[in-house]
Formats: sequence, structure tokens, C-alpha cells
Amino acid sequence: MSTKLKIGLFGFGIVGEGLYKALHQTPTLQASIEKVCIKNASKKRNAPADLFTTQKDDILYDKEINVIVEVIDDADAAFEIVSTALQNGKQVVSASKKMLAHHLPEILKLQEKYKRSFLYESAACASIPVIRNLEEYYDNDLLHSIRAIVNGSTNYMLTRMLEDKLCFADALLQAQQLGFAESNPSLDIEGFDAVNKWCLLLAHAYGVVVHPDKILFSGIQHIDTCDADFAMVNDCAIKLIAHAEKLDNGQVAAYVLPTFVKNSDALSFVRNEFNGVVIESSFADQQFFYGKGAGSFPTASAVLSDIAALRYDYKYEYKKMHQSPTQLDDSFLLSVYLRYPKNAAIDVENWDDFEVVDYSLSYAIARAKVSINELLINNWWKQKNGVSLIVLPVLIEQKGKNNFAISNEVSV
Amino acid sequence: MSTKLKIGLFGFGIVGEGLYKALHQTPTLQASIEKVCIKNASKKRNAPADLFTTQKDDILYDKEINVIVEVIDDADAAFEIVSTALQNGKQVVSASKKMLAHHLPEILKLQEKYKRSFLYESAACASIPVIRNLEEYYDNDLLHSIRAIVNGSTNYMLTRMLEDKLCFADALLQAQQLGFAESNPSLDIEGFDAVNKWCLLLAHAYGVVVHPDKILFSGIQHIDTCDADFAMVNDCAIKLIAHAEKLDNGQVAAYVLPTFVKNSDALSFVRNEFNGVVIESSFADQQFFYGKGAGSFPTASAVLSDIAALRYDYKYEYKKMHQSPTQLDDSFLLSVYLRYPKNAAIDVENWDDFEVVDYSLSYAIARAKVSINELLINNWWKQKNGVSLIVLPVLIEQKGKNNFAISNEVSV
Repeated sequence: MSTKLKIGLFGFGIVGEGLYKALHQTPTLQASIEKVCIKNASKKRNAPADLFTTQKDDILYDKEINVIVEVIDDADAAFEIVSTALQNGKQVVSASKKMLAHHLPEILKLQEKYKRSFLYESAACASIPVIRNLEEYYDNDLLHSIRAIVNGSTNYMLTRMLEDKLCFADALLQAQQLGFAESNPSLDIEGFDAVNKWCLLLAHAYGVVVHPDKILFSGIQHIDTCDADFAMVNDCAIKLIAHAEKLDNGQVAAYVLPTFVKNSDALSFVRNEFNGVVIESSFADQQFFYGKGAGSFPTASAVLSDIAALRYDYKYEYKKMHQSPTQLDDSFLLSVYLRYPKNAAIDVENWDDFEVVDYSLSYAIARAKVSINELLINNWWKQKNGVSLIVLPVLIEQKGKNNFAISNEVSV
Repeated sequence: MSTKLKIGLFGFGIVGEGLYKALHQTPTLQASIEKVCIKNASKKRNAPADLFTTQKDDILYDKEINVIVEVIDDADAAFEIVSTALQNGKQVVSASKKMLAHHLPEILKLQEKYKRSFLYESAACASIPVIRNLEEYYDNDLLHSIRAIVNGSTNYMLTRMLEDKLCFADALLQAQQLGFAESNPSLDIEGFDAVNKWCLLLAHAYGVVVHPDKILFSGIQHIDTCDADFAMVNDCAIKLIAHAEKLDNGQVAAYVLPTFVKNSDALSFVRNEFNGVVIESSFADQQFFYGKGAGSFPTASAVLSDIAALRYDYKYEYKKMHQSPTQLDDSFLLSVYLRYPKNAAIDVENWDDFEVVDYSLSYAIARAKVSINELLINNWWKQKNGVSLIVLPVLIEQKGKNNFAISNEVSV
């Protein structure tokens, strides 16, 4: 595309306004925002009034506009916008992870049908160029695993709980006061935001296209000080880790769960509201990417890089999806820590090697092995108050009941 | 380029052989090594004998071969090979940092003249995709600074000196035994390798094209246990840091020098033979990339990603060089630590705020401010035995003579 990029922008919240400002500071990009569609016409905006419209068709059917940038919250409206945009021959940049995760199969078809670029680097880990690197750089390298912290709000809370010994409620309050968590924070806290992002990264890392409902996930809603104490004693942090690894059977095991992370693990470096991604591959070995995963300018920077890529008609090729489409393996066994009230009824009939390792406190702590499938089907552990399930690092010392130490041999 | 990539490979050492093996494991790339040029025909190779030739023209003038991959040690021979290859219409992938750093202006001209791709991701930080990300991702974002550990051998030695309290000689011996340092290690230890890589990154980060001779650099040859002790007391590590920052005057200050790095700095996470890059920018904020900077497969992985990029005729655009060519500023003042034998004659006439802060040991420790230019012109500090110059973090507590603590306010 050698013509000037004329952008129609949907949304003028934190990200939209950040993008507007950032574009003004990058004249070399030769891109301009022609029109902005907003919901609320009466709200005061830091931009000329004639830039705004509340009618989406003013943008979608404007022949001058060749790029649609969509950064709105409403997933259904976003899907309608990007679908119409692709049909109308426009290139699209989107930041709507929920919309993307829930509609990926349709979006793939639309891209194929209308042959337009559809980029969404900002939808996962914002400023960290992880999608582009998975597409381009790890295209030819066998990925053993990818592990990531993709949600800044929960990582901020967990950092405060571990480092300042805050309880869950106080950590949440602090995150809200600093603007790292929404006033209704359940999307972050219960893991919905993380699993949406993980869907996108699974597509680019392994060619797996799957609805978020099919992925085992939880958030940090049940983590509390007793779990944090256990972590500290074992030289670990607790992080909400999105995990995927290639198995010997060619399939991929994937989940998003709270996880004990050894202090020597690169992901333990990711503190506060930051995001991080660790990639292990045959040739490049271990790689670690770290940066801001949310916020006005960090998100705008990723949108900007997508806009820049449109200048040379860059498209995701989804090569892994085409060359070696992969399925999720839900028989994969996880080693887990389970903390529960002593008197609670827990259904662990289908769990392996269940072993209570501490019964001396007001709650019990057990470890066990359990399949992804069992945790997906019988998800009482997610719903019961006072029950906290945390993944243990892969290698656990198996020296007997009294030794529950998390091994140092865990690979970083 | 939709035709199959037919590769002529120069060099079959650690990297060349790694690439040969890696290519065999990535059939999807549709690239094959047709011929390999080596110096020593009698050496036993792990590949069919008819693959090899000692005559470079067998490859350079073979019309079937459309890609030259050059991974040899001899910079002059490498330059001749890549020049001829470009002239003959072949795409080129090179891993020769010294050749690239010393011949960048000519190589830029050849690329422009013959319109062929010339990629060299592996030449700086090997497996870390830093050149591609600077080209593509930070193209539109104002880079405040880029700081990096680009030499794994010296980083391994410094890690052992700091963590295991090894003396310089023992750290070197250990690095050599593990294959992290050459039998003649001066290229690494004296900073030549690092400054060559830094030249390449300066071109892609800031559009600065400069010969390595014009950059202030030193290695770790003068670092010893007393410096390590000072670092430990101040919660720092010592790292060989390549540094560049954009100044208010629009110019760039750049150097490669041993530097005290606070334990809270992302670069302190980079231990042993790993490399790391920290980028600070207006929009993306802080980014950190970490991975292996040398070795057979990590280097081959970067070469492989370049080969993959040739499939869609990817070229570096050197946009910053064309849009806003930048000069180096050599009046920039560095805060430094200087350790020297008490009886040594030191020439600090043109240094500012020179202040001896410890004279109680067998050597003296002073701090001062000194310009890049002064250190370039009067480089006695680099040549005198027992003299060690280490950059101090930007903010030093200025509370008086007795307080030489490195401030915690140093931005990570």
C-alpha cells in the first residue's frame, strides 16, 4: 500500500486517545485519523469536535478511509465493525482480545475471502511484539513451550500479596486506586482476559484455533495469604501463568492457572503490572520478552506498529495453522497444590497420587496429579470458597510425605 | 521470491554445521544447501563429501544458487564474498559482525545498487530478534535509549567473578573450558566484539553509521576482585554494557564500557553466557529482550529466520538513516568510578569533579565526570595496568565525600 493511510478510528477511550496523540508525534508514518466513531457524543474530548461521529457507517462506508482501527470494549459491536470493514475492502487493526478470541474462526475466513490485512498485535501483551515474533521469527523453529504472564492487573495484585503481604482485598483495592484494575475487575481476576489473550497466542504459536471455553483456566480469585506464605517458604512467587507445550504425541497442552514460579525462573522477574513471555525452542533455546501489557501508550505503540506494517501490506500468514494444524491434548497431567478448608467436601476421586501434606493449620494442603480434562469437567475447585488450586513446577522432589519442597531442578 | 531457496554456504564451523542440521529439521522452509565452501578440504565433516568445495567461485558464479549464507571468521574474505554475491544478483545472509561493522557504508551502497536483500540478524545478540524488531517495531516510536549486553563470553566471566568471587584469570579459564571463550580471547575481553555488534544496532536503532574506531569502548580486561567487591557492597553487578541514548540536542551518546548495574535493573537478570537488551521508548515504555547471544543453534536460528524472511523478499529499509540521520555526540559526560594503584600517574586534568573516595586500601578509588571525547583521545585509562574504569549508574547520591553509595533511584 503506497497510498497514504487514512484511518477511521472506533473508540476514543484510554487507548484511542493514546493512539491519537501518538500518531501526532510520528509524522513519518504518513497516516492520519480522518474520523472517530464514539458512543457518547456529549462527552468532552481532547480533539477537534468535527473529528467525531456516532454513526459507524460514516466511517465504514467512507471510500476515502482505507484503514479501520478498532479499540472499543463491546465485543459484539467490534465484530460487526471489523466484519463490515473487511467486506468493504478496508485493512483492519484491532485491539479487542475478547472479540478476537471468540470469533477467530470467522475472522480467519473473512481474511481469506476478502484478502485484506487484519492485525492485532496489541491484543496480547500490548507493547511486547509477541504475535509478530511468533509469526515471523519462530516460524521455522520447533517451539517446545511458551509460558507467559499476560494480565497486568492480576500480576500487580499477586506482587503486592507476595512482597507486601497484603490480603487479596487490599491488593485489589490498591490495584484499583492505581488504575491497574477496573471497578468491576472480575474479567481480570477470574482469568477471562488472560484466556482470551492465550487463545490468540496459541493460534500463532502452534496453529491451534480453539474457543476460550475449551481451555482450562482460572484466575487468582481464590489466592490468599496462606498460599503466599507457602510460596515464600519455598522460594517461589505465585503468578497467573498461561502455559502451552508441545507433547511427544504432537498435540499441545495448554492452560491458564495460578502457578508457583521459582525465583530463578525468568517469569519471576515480571513484577507489578508488567507482562512477560518465555519461549523455549529447539534452536533459539530460551527467549524472554518483557514489557508493559496494558495502558494508553503501550497499547497504542502496538497499534502503531500494526499501522506501520500496513504500509507494506503485511498480513499474518498463520503458517503453522496451514502447515501443521494441532489439537489440544486434555489428558495431560498437571501437578497441583490444593489448599482447602479441613471440613470441605472435595471431589478428588479421579485425581492421582492425592496426598495431604499439611493438616496442621486451619486448612489442609494437599498435592496431587490431575488431568486437564478432569479439571475442565469437574470444576468444583474453581467454585468453592476457600479452595485454591495452584500448579506446581514440573519437577517435584518425590522424597516422601514430609518433603513438599518445590525442587530447585525446575528449569528456568 | 516464490522460487525455492538454493543456498550456497560459506563456512562449516560451529555455526555453519548448526545451520546445516537445523535446516534439515525444517522442511517447511523449502530451502536447501546446495554447496558449502570451506578452507580446509582435509578436515572430516559431518555431511556428504560432494557438498563441499574450496573454490568460492563454484558457489558465487553458480546460477542455480540464489542465496549466499556467509558464516566465516575472516572479515576481509567475508566482505569479498558478500560483495561479489550482491553483484551477481544473489540475496545474502551474513553472521560476520566484524565485517559488517567495518564495511557498513559500502554494504549499504551495494544493497542500494543491486537491490538485493542483505540480512544479518545473527550478527548481534544471535537468537534475540533485536535488529528485526528495531527495524519494524520501533520504527515509529521515539527511542530514548537502548542498553544491552551483547557479548556472552565476558558476561559469563563477570557473572563468575561476582557470584563465585573468582579472579579474572580463573574466570577466563572456566569460560574457555566451557567453550564460552576462545583460546585467544582478546576480541571478546577487550570489547572489540561488543563494539562491532553495537555499530550494527546503532544503525538500526538510530540511523547512526559509524566505524567502530569512532566509538568509545573498552572491555573487561582490567576488572578484578576489588571492583567486584565494590559492586557487591553497593548491590550492583558489573556488566559490559553497550549504551546509546538520544540527547536533547537530537544527537546520540553511545559507548561500550564496564558498568555498575543495580540489582533492580533488568540487565542484572542477564547472567552467564546470555545476552539482553533493554529499550526505553516514548510509547512502548520499557522493553526487555533476553536470550542466547552465541552458540551453534542460537546463531543458526537467527540465520534461519533471515532465510525465512527472504521467501517474501524482506529487506532492511534503514528508515531512520533515511528519515533522520543522526550524529554521535562526544561531549556527553559520563559518571565514572576509577580504581588505580596509589602510586600511579593518572592524567585527569580534563576530568570534572574528580574526587578520591577511598584511599584506605592498597589502591585508590575515585569518582569523576568525564566526556566521551576525553576518554577517546586520552585513553591511558585503557592501557595502564591496575587501572579500572567503570561507568556509574546515572544518579549518584551527592551527599558528600563519604557517601559513595550508588543511588537506588537509578531507573531500571
